[in-house]
Amino acid sequence: MSTVLRLPAASLAKAAPTPRAAPAGPRLALLGTGTVGKAFVARCERLRGQGVTVPAFAWLSNSRALVAGDEDPCGAVERARAAPAREGAWPPWVENESLRCGDVVVDATASESVAGWHSEWLARGIHVVTANKLGNGGELARAQAIAAARGERGARYGDAATVGAGLPLLRSIRELVAGGDRILAVEGILSGSLAWLFDRYDDSRPFSDLVREARASGYTEPDPRLDLSGEDVRRKLLILARAAGLPLEAHAVRGDSLLPPALAAASVGAADALLPSLDAPLRERFRLAHRQGARLRFVARFDEAGAELGLRALPVAHPLCAGGGTDNLVAITSCRYRDQPLVIRGPGAGAEVTAAALLDDVLQVARAAA
Amino acid sequence: MSTVLRLPAASLAKAAPTPRAAPAGPRLALLGTGTVGKAFVARCERLRGQGVTVPAFAWLSNSRALVAGDEDPCGAVERARAAPAREGAWPPWVENESLRCGDVVVDATASESVAGWHSEWLARGIHVVTANKLGNGGELARAQAIAAARGERGARYGDAATVGAGLPLLRSIRELVAGGDRILAVEGILSGSLAWLFDRYDDSRPFSDLVREARASGYTEPDPRLDLSGEDVRRKLLILARAAGLPLEAHAVRGDSLLPPALAAASVGAADALLPSLDAPLRERFRLAHRQGARLRFVARFDEAGAELGLRALPVAHPLCAGGGTDNLVAITSCRYRDQPLVIRGPGAGAEVTAAALLDDVLQVARAAA
Ligand SMILES: NC(=O)c1ccc[n+]([C@@H]2O[C@H](COP(=O)([O-])OP(=O)(O)OC[C@H]3O[C@@H](n4cnc5c(N)ncnc54)[C@H](OP(=O)(O)O)[C@@H]3O)[C@@H](O)[C@H]2O)c1
Ligand SMILES: NC(=O)c1ccc[n+]([C@@H]2O[C@H](COP(=O)([O-])OP(=O)(O)OC[C@H]3O[C@@H](n4cnc5c(N)ncnc54)[C@H](OP(=O)(O)O)[C@@H]3O)[C@@H](O)[C@H]2O)c1
Repeated sequence: MSTVLRLPAASLAKAAPTPRAAPAGPRLALLGTGTVGKAFVARCERLRGQGVTVPAFAWLSNSRALVAGDEDPCGAVERARAAPAREGAWPPWVENESLRCGDVVVDATASESVAGWHSEWLARGIHVVTANKLGNGGELARAQAIAAARGERGARYGDAATVGAGLPLLRSIRELVAGGDRILAVEGILSGSLAWLFDRYDDSRPFSDLVREARASGYTEPDPRLDLSGEDVRRKLLILARAAGLPLEAHAVRGDSLLPPALAAASVGAADALLPSLDAPLRERFRLAHRQGARLRFVARFDEAGAELGLRALPVAHPLCAGGGTDNLVAITSCRYRDQPLVIRGPGAGAEVTAAALLDDVLQVARAAA
Repeated sequence: MSTVLRLPAASLAKAAPTPRAAPAGPRLALLGTGTVGKAFVARCERLRGQGVTVPAFAWLSNSRALVAGDEDPCGAVERARAAPAREGAWPPWVENESLRCGDVVVDATASESVAGWHSEWLARGIHVVTANKLGNGGELARAQAIAAARGERGARYGDAATVGAGLPLLRSIRELVAGGDRILAVEGILSGSLAWLFDRYDDSRPFSDLVREARASGYTEPDPRLDLSGEDVRRKLLILARAAGLPLEAHAVRGDSLLPPALAAASVGAADALLPSLDAPLRERFRLAHRQGARLRFVARFDEAGAELGLRALPVAHPLCAGGGTDNLVAITSCRYRDQPLVIRGPGAGAEVTAAALLDDVLQVARAAA
């Protein structure tokens, strides 16, 4: 995870009323200048170039540096990315900068401690737009704190990027519920990286080779074990279930990890060397499935009785075998869609679509504020 | 079509400021008490019973009668449906009733003349929620008048029911465009009734038999020739294309009707007896496709170069052969979704889902007004 960032609440509150020329409309503050954060800034600039009104960057930051962003955001990202590692307990961006009511924080980190701030920001009227799944996809208490804080001062919580990289999944579930529907079950393929891996894997190359290729293409989490353990899918399933009105506890999702114990236990530095320990067990599962004319798919599901996830061997004609590439595929069964489910499919990973989903949410906040 | 309803604009304007005790929140006025209108009222009452806040009915009407709806809407629908045919040029609901700024008109007719009023109502600040495709799916000038009028006094135009019976199609296209995306192509199966017919048709029964069954189940338009001619699909394609930002003229859609000329030209009363003229040509097309291992599907498509629709023979494994029942299936290709499209599939016809889509839009209007 990332630098610890627990701050006495007073330090943000104190900074808020700094006397400064107030710019028109909300300002953006970006946390995280990795694959997604960098793509987000590039997309903001591209759309601005096309005449779309995108809020200005107050600042951009990572765990090492904070850089003002109003003049040249793409340059600012590069400067932040090039910053040296730093010592000290608190990242400078919280100490030095004020966030005002009406501003938009964009969380493009994978940080537990940043996710811990979501409800605090909302309570102060600061909008939060996030690709970080640890807000609504972590402990239930945190998701409930976010839901409660959202109402308080009218701040919005944009989480389209957290599941399906902006596919209309969360939105559709929430709109069905708002229209009086009851969600009975959601089943599907929620990991773009696992979809890509099992779509590609045909036993001609070791599985670990493909994992390295997926990581290099930006499809996996920075640490691909988050995908392979099912942890990433578990978080997404929690986000969907809670959007459907099911107060699911984080530990209530049943399911198996793909990781052999030694790989699961290894340090981040040692993990890459251990990736080949995936190869033999997955080859065996592949060959078994292949003999039965089946395909391997990593499937997640919840219904009103519970939630589970894991690798399944499915007949080629099974609806969950449709799609290719990094496609996510989700079938929603509800009182309204009881006989035939509502099915949504499309690319569910990659920096570009994730950045686009973040910007969608930012533009919605900006439109609502206008 | 329906009773002519062109009124001097003054007659509504005059009625507007009637001094009366103003109820809290918007009021509903329903036009059309047929299959969809009746299901809409039943759903309103069911959701109210579940504790959802649904605006009250000011009145309900069809082409024969207008009935006050505030006490017992389900009874009012039945009274309106039981009303005798009436003489006279103007339906009474426009003459006698006032619509106020902030009210919501629900159009569950298939009437050209009612659709001609959409932009007028919007311009007066009256929200319009419609299952009638002749607003955005008729002449381009009318769709443009609706778009222009919507902004004037903040009235909303809810048309989720017009395409895919509330599937998140229109919404997804509009949100992609709002997020700076460019829609490159939309292709799919837009008619729930034609989907159902070609999913079922296997040459064991005459096609005309199935058409009568589909009509009885409420899947087709009141006059099933609107489906079989492709006219219903053409309107939906126009609605989608215009939502994507393509100013497509109504006559610009290329495509073939399934109707033999005599059936196309017959009066409404005479059409049913002529339905069997469909049987021989469709049997021939089915057998030809069958010999090639293909399936018949009625496919619609637009891209930046134009729009077309028609019956196609597709290989069984073709993505457009997925789904069953009355499923619609739409693939959206855009700059964001260029390699793998965004695909949305689900039930796209039937009074229940259509009524649910209308109520979704009504509840959105009510929430925005709260
Ligand atoms: N890639 C995808 O397809 C995808 C799809 C959906 C969602 N996501 C989510 O998007 C998020 C970012 O993914 P990524 O691939 O961009 O990760 P990444 O390349 O590892 O970038 C993470 C960034 O977060 C920064 N960071 C960590 N702790 C921080 C803190 N306390 N304050 C400020 N910045 C902090 C890191 O700083 P340093 O540079 O100093 O380390 C780094 O810049 C993750 O939550 C991921 O799950 C990704
Ligand atoms: N069924 C579906 O699956 C579906 C799906 C999506 C959209 N839609 C659309 O929903 C609409 C209604 O379909 P439906 O199946 O309910 O049709 P329907 O059963 O024929 O009902 C049409 C209703 O409209 C009324 N009407 C006609 N002209 C009117 C006027 N000027 N003022 C007031 N009422 C008028 C009719 O009055 P009378 O009773 O006096 O004739 C009738 O009650 C159509 O536009 C259709 O395309 C239907």
